Amino acid sequence: MFSVTVRDHMMIAHSLRGEVFGPAQQLHGATYVVDATFRRATLDADGIVIDIGRATEVLRAVVGELGYRNLDDEPAFAGQNTTTEVLARVVADRLVDALGDAARELDGIEVTLRESHVAWASYERRL
Amino acid sequence: MFSVTVRDHMMIAHSLRGEVFGPAQQLHGATYVVDATFRRATLDADGIVIDIGRATEVLRAVVGELGYRNLDDEPAFAGQNTTTEVLARVVADRLVDALGDAARELDGIEVTLRESHVAWASYERRL
Amino acid sequence: MFSVTVRDHMMIAHSLRGEVFGPAQQLHGATYVVDATFRRATLDADGIVIDIGRATEVLRAVVGELGYRNLDDEPAFAGQNTTTEVLARVVADRLVDALGDAARELDGIEVTLRESHVAWASYERRL
Amino acid sequence: MFSVTVRDHMMIAHSLRGEVFGPAQQLHGATYVVDATFRRATLDADGIVIDIGRATEVLRAVVGELGYRNLDDEPAFAGQNTTTEVLARVVADRLVDALGDAARELDGIEVTLRESHVAWASYERRL
Amino acid sequence: MFSVTVRDHMMIAHSLRGEVFGPAQQLHGATYVVDATFRRATLDADGIVIDIGRATEVLRAVVGELGYRNLDDEPAFAGQNTTTEVLARVVADRLVDALGDAARELDGIEVTLRESHVAWASYERRL
Amino acid sequence: MFSVTVRDHMMIAHSLRGEVFGPAQQLHGATYVVDATFRRATLDADGIVIDIGRATEVLRAVVGELGYRNLDDEPAFAGQNTTTEVLARVVADRLVDALGDAARELDGIEVTLRESHVAWASYERRL
Repeated sequence: MFSVTVRDHMMIAHSLRGEVFGPAQQLHGATYVVDATFRRATLDADGIVIDIGRATEVLRAVVGELGYRNLDDEPAFAGQNTTTEVLARVVADRLVDALGDAARELDGIEVTLRESHVAWASYERRL
Repeated sequence: MFSVTVRDHMMIAHSLRGEVFGPAQQLHGATYVVDATFRRATLDADGIVIDIGRATEVLRAVVGELGYRNLDDEPAFAGQNTTTEVLARVVADRLVDALGDAARELDGIEVTLRESHVAWASYERRL
Repeated sequence: MFSVTVRDHMMIAHSLRGEVFGPAQQLHGATYVVDATFRRATLDADGIVIDIGRATEVLRAVVGELGYRNLDDEPAFAGQNTTTEVLARVVADRLVDALGDAARELDGIEVTLRESHVAWASYERRL
Repeated sequence: MFSVTVRDHMMIAHSLRGEVFGPAQQLHGATYVVDATFRRATLDADGIVIDIGRATEVLRAVVGELGYRNLDDEPAFAGQNTTTEVLARVVADRLVDALGDAARELDGIEVTLRESHVAWASYERRL
Repeated sequence: MFSVTVRDHMMIAHSLRGEVFGPAQQLHGATYVVDATFRRATLDADGIVIDIGRATEVLRAVVGELGYRNLDDEPAFAGQNTTTEVLARVVADRLVDALGDAARELDGIEVTLRESHVAWASYERRL
Repeated sequence: MFSVTVRDHMMIAHSLRGEVFGPAQQLHGATYVVDATFRRATLDADGIVIDIGRATEVLRAVVGELGYRNLDDEPAFAGQNTTTEVLARVVADRLVDALGDAARELDGIEVTLRESHVAWASYERRL
């Protein structure tokens, strides 16, 4: 199995509902350093999983729609917590949508959101 | 599949028995930067695998019982080498014990011990 | 010259006033990974600049008063932009205050706030 | 499952054929930071997957044969693009060859080549 | 003293003349992860040294003119070794030129080129 | 001012005397990731501060004499605490000695010892 990963980041505000979150129930924010991994069992005729430049552009477009916002005000997230795990899935699903037919060539995608130097979350989706 | 990872560290002394270890047969030490990954196929009602604050506390408790010690003197490790691989399993198993019933919600746990900027070891356990 | 650095982090929401900030004028947020450096020309009788455990506690206290907040609502920052540079100075000044007499032993302090994997800011203060 | 990873690097020149590569069709170069992961379901009698010193030596030998070269001139790569993905497989296959009988003890090997702080590729091979 | 640092990268081919360079006398290449630091004794009216977005754009323009090239063929470097140190100075000088009048506000600039996980070089210029 | 930095590491056991050290008074250990920085105001005829390969060899020799040892048993450290700060100075001084005449070309040297992902210490010496 081969994979290619590209990294970008987004800076958002949000709050989380639920006692388990303690002080994170208050409005605060995060920088998410976002790693998007694209997987293929075999390489294409050019010898790649996906062009790194193309992967970078697609990831930039997806994080660009999320960054510099207060996610508490985004209709797309109404009624759900925008935890690191949930946002990892959102980014992964939007990457698949953005890739369109190109996603059919992939065997899977994984997105990791690093919220600090000591905590991160991932979502892996088979394709 | 979702995962959450938290990072902590521990500083220990030890020696390793076996010619394969060369100079590491002498009493020396290591800082292990410890990454604990918790996996779940689906998120809970709060939208998480495990609360990052809770995961951080549990990991701190486990590494706190190992750090600032000479592992050669610890009865728990009598008769076995405290290699990076072995310690990764010890941390993983103790995390499962420390989580108690909460571990039942998980599909797996993985622990990585980074002993330097150029070497690390992992142990993955299905739950 | 000797120095000791310890790292912690804080997660905040804020917005910035001024056209130069572009989309960062909207309410968003950041994780700041905070490095606090303490400098001394000579070591004390124990052979240290400052105990790493003590430095860690003081830094945790300072970032704990800033994190999990919307800085736009904090009276301490009324009328000024909470840019990465400004916050670096705030953390440095609060560290000096928190150290009290111990700060007299130091020749300087520097605080770096990393807002992503590709951008950070520092403030250095002679003591 | 256990794993051990060691890191080294190599610095090469090359060019890539295919419009998808844009400016990377010109002769340029890369530092690849190379992570080699060795996997075993169980540990050996010494409590290891592979000795970290031994793994380091084998990896150094393999990257030593690739580094400080223009890969466009290497007969081994005639007619194929030396993309990050392809080179990850080359390193993995050469590691297996270099390990000889010792590779039989392993359940798998994975090689990651980091070409920058924002892009990397991996190849995983079951053994 | 305040500073802001932004990071980008460039991938180049080159060779170095001089016995001291050993195998690096052959045509090879490097990824340079480039950190550009801008220093000011005081902040401007917006509370910044330089806008991080602006700094990022300027750095991208400068590294864009160097990357994806064989530096041995660049007239700008005829007759001199494009060592990591030399390239750090080139990037710093070009940043100052690209900033134009804005550079007058700065007290200094420093550029660090990381050529691997174990080696880097810097050039610092007072302004 | 120019600088070149190379990285290596060493793994040692030790204990620290003094109540300030808390649990670190017990025999424990550390991996120190060691960064050695060499500074020169101007480059030599080859366009370098020091050859990176040469710097790497010298650093390896110095850390090789410290690693895989219990520093409590080393006569060189009798009667003093082997704190991170003290060891940074030891490495710096030994680098200067190992460089011999070549050190005369340098304007300064700085050594940073990273004992974990959240703590490090440096010693800077003018030459």
